[in-house]
Parts: sequence; C-alpha cells; structure tokens
Amino acid sequence: MTQLRLVIGNKNYSSWSLRPWLALKQFGVQFEEIRIPLYTPETASQLQEYSPSKKVPVLLDNNQSIWDSLAICEYLAEEFPDLHWWPEDKINRALARSISAEMHSGFLNLRQNMPMNCRAKFPGKGLTSEVQKDIDRITSIWQEFRQKFAADGDMLFGKFTIADAMFAPVVLRFVTYDVQLDHISRKYAEAILELPAMQEWIEAAKQETEVLLQYELYV
Amino acid sequence: MTQLRLVIGNKNYSSWSLRPWLALKQFGVQFEEIRIPLYTPETASQLQEYSPSKKVPVLLDNNQSIWDSLAICEYLAEEFPDLHWWPEDKINRALARSISAEMHSGFLNLRQNMPMNCRAKFPGKGLTSEVQKDIDRITSIWQEFRQKFAADGDMLFGKFTIADAMFAPVVLRFVTYDVQLDHISRKYAEAILELPAMQEWIEAAKQETEVLLQYELYV
Repeated sequence: MTQLRLVIGNKNYSSWSLRPWLALKQFGVQFEEIRIPLYTPETASQLQEYSPSKKVPVLLDNNQSIWDSLAICEYLAEEFPDLHWWPEDKINRALARSISAEMHSGFLNLRQNMPMNCRAKFPGKGLTSEVQKDIDRITSIWQEFRQKFAADGDMLFGKFTIADAMFAPVVLRFVTYDVQLDHISRKYAEAILELPAMQEWIEAAKQETEVLLQYELYV
Repeated sequence: MTQLRLVIGNKNYSSWSLRPWLALKQFGVQFEEIRIPLYTPETASQLQEYSPSKKVPVLLDNNQSIWDSLAICEYLAEEFPDLHWWPEDKINRALARSISAEMHSGFLNLRQNMPMNCRAKFPGKGLTSEVQKDIDRITSIWQEFRQKFAADGDMLFGKFTIADAMFAPVVLRFVTYDVQLDHISRKYAEAILELPAMQEWIEAAKQETEVLLQYELYV
C-alpha cells in the first residue's frame, strides 16, 4: 500500500495547498495531512524537511517528495488510473490540462488583489480593471465547459477532475470578495462549494487562529 | 498523419513560445510554425483566431487549439509516447514534472527583472537580491539533477526531456544578463545553448526587427 502524506499550509490562506488536498479527498484516496503554518519563525525549517522548493504543497510518497500542485496531481493521476483524475477523452484531457495550466501560471492580478482568505468577507474590494479581466476570462472558461458538459454532471467536464481542483480556490476568492457572476458561473461556484471536502476545508480554515497580514489586504 | 501547427510570438522575446517549439524540434516532430508578433495593433485579432487564452503558445492539431506551454508538452508526450518526452522511471518523471511546474508558476522576480531578449546584452542588470534567490534555486535544481544523471547525458535527466524545454529560456536570460554560474550550471547552460534547435531559434531571433520596450528594461 502507498503511504501518502500531503504537506499543506494554513487552510484559510493557502490556495495552492487546497488543490491537491481537494483532489485527494474527492477521489477518496487516503492520506495523512501535515499542516505547516506559513510565515512563522519556524516555517522555513519545517518546510526544509519536506520541500525542495521551500513551498507548499508537497506530496510525500514513502518519503519521496513530489512538489507543486499540478505535478502532484499528475503523479496521482498516474498512480490511480482507474479514478480518472483527468477526462478520459484525449482532446477533453488536453483541454482540461490547458485550463489547469492557464490557472497555474496566470491570473496574477486576481491572485494579488484578491488573496484567498476563506473566513473573511471583503465585498467589492480588490476589483481593479485588470482583476476584472482575469475574472472575465475565468468565467468564460467556466461557461464554455459547463455548457459543453451540462449533461454529464455539474463539474467543468461533467465529473470532478483536476481542472476543478485547480479552480476551487478561485471560487473561494469570489465568495470572499463577493464577485458578481453570471448564472452559469454562479451555479458552478455553488456546486464546488457544496462538495463535502470543500465544506470540510472551509470549516477547518475557520478554526485556524493564525492571522497573516499578507492575505488581509482590506482589514 | 497528424497535422500540427504551433502558434508562437516573437522569437527574441517570447520565452513561453520557446518551450514547446524546442521540444518539438528536439524530438523531431514535424510542425508548421505560425509567428504572431506581440504587442502590435493586429496582435489581439490575430491571436483571437487561434488562442482561447489570447496568449502564445498554442498548438493546433487539425484545428483543435491546445494552449499553454506545459499542457502542449503533456499533450505531445501522450501523442508520441515512443519519444519519451518525460523520463521513463515513475519517480524521475514525477521529479521532472515537479521542477517543470515550479518553473511554470514561479520565479516571478527573475522573469520580471530579466526578461528574455535573445539578441541583447545587459551584463549585471536586473540582479536584485530577490532575483538572486530565484537564480540560486534554479542552479540548485540544475546541480542536483546534473549530478544525479551525469552518466546518462548532459541534460537534466540525462537525455532531453520537457524539463529541459521548460528551463531553456532561463539559459538565454543568464546569457543576456551575464549571470555568474557555478561550474555544473555553466556546463548545463552550454549544453542547452549548443542544441541545434536552440541555435536555430537564436539565429531567427536575431533576424527579427521588432523592438518591444516591455522587454528592453535596460536600454
């Protein structure tokens, strides 16, 4: 049996950590969670033990470190092929990877101005014109795939895939900053929020007591 | 037969375009190149025709758009499995994906302060302390994998893989800004520069006449 451990940061703030955590939970893969609170005097030395990049998340498979949210998901997709972490159709899989990678390297304005902060409410804050462009692109992606796969389920490609895990933190940002969404995007965001694993993450985030000012731009 | 076309930006400036272009060339896969000069009055409408994200690179496989450098490479790795775009060993493949994804979403200080500019020479420019941290992490990756796979060839995992394509633009930055490198990293950078496809890219970049001030920070 594989012994998997996932090293994550604060649930309230660490958007990158949420992605593989959510995917593992959604696909029912057992793992042990190691939470390292970020930006404390001990964080660097704690991360050093597991993470070559000194960042979270890191997957430990029998002590082998595999890092970065997307690379972790690709590894798990290979390890558990029967669970279909990506769409089964070749072109759909390529499109799921395209939007996942677009999320992975892009949307910097959104990320900088609307940092993930599960328990906070900052309605209307952070909405610059550049952020709006990021939001428009994200919702155009959601609309396109939700319309195309409407008959197959309520996730981007019908059933849950890595692509949904990649966009889940954005859903939480849209809640925190009360971003106005079209009907299709709102329905998708609601479906993501209703996932039991998302509820579990949000509840755990609310129990956390650390306050990181890097993510509290509008207090 | 597959009919592949790759939409790229200016060879002098577009680091994202270089990645899948270099991989296609290295693996000997035939493709047609469509070059769209960036930041012209026509760029947006030209990109619109091919690119849902309005960015380069985009791969067109019989008119199906697949975008983002990393997703394009994953698609090609699946399409041409005999060419071994990733290392064959499972853990090495996971590590190659880890460092590729780390490059894909990170090193923002390096990217912002040392934009790719093949034909320019700006020795010593852009070297802030934050940029140096990015350089240190990159060279630590290069040292680790070059030492581990020294017996198998002169690329990161011995033979050329997607991971080398992901780091190739960094090599060009290090040349332009004359970044001081340790012995192992310098040898690796030289091996990348000596690839015939890299020489072809650099020569073509030198022939380009467009000047984009976004990438000419130190003129």
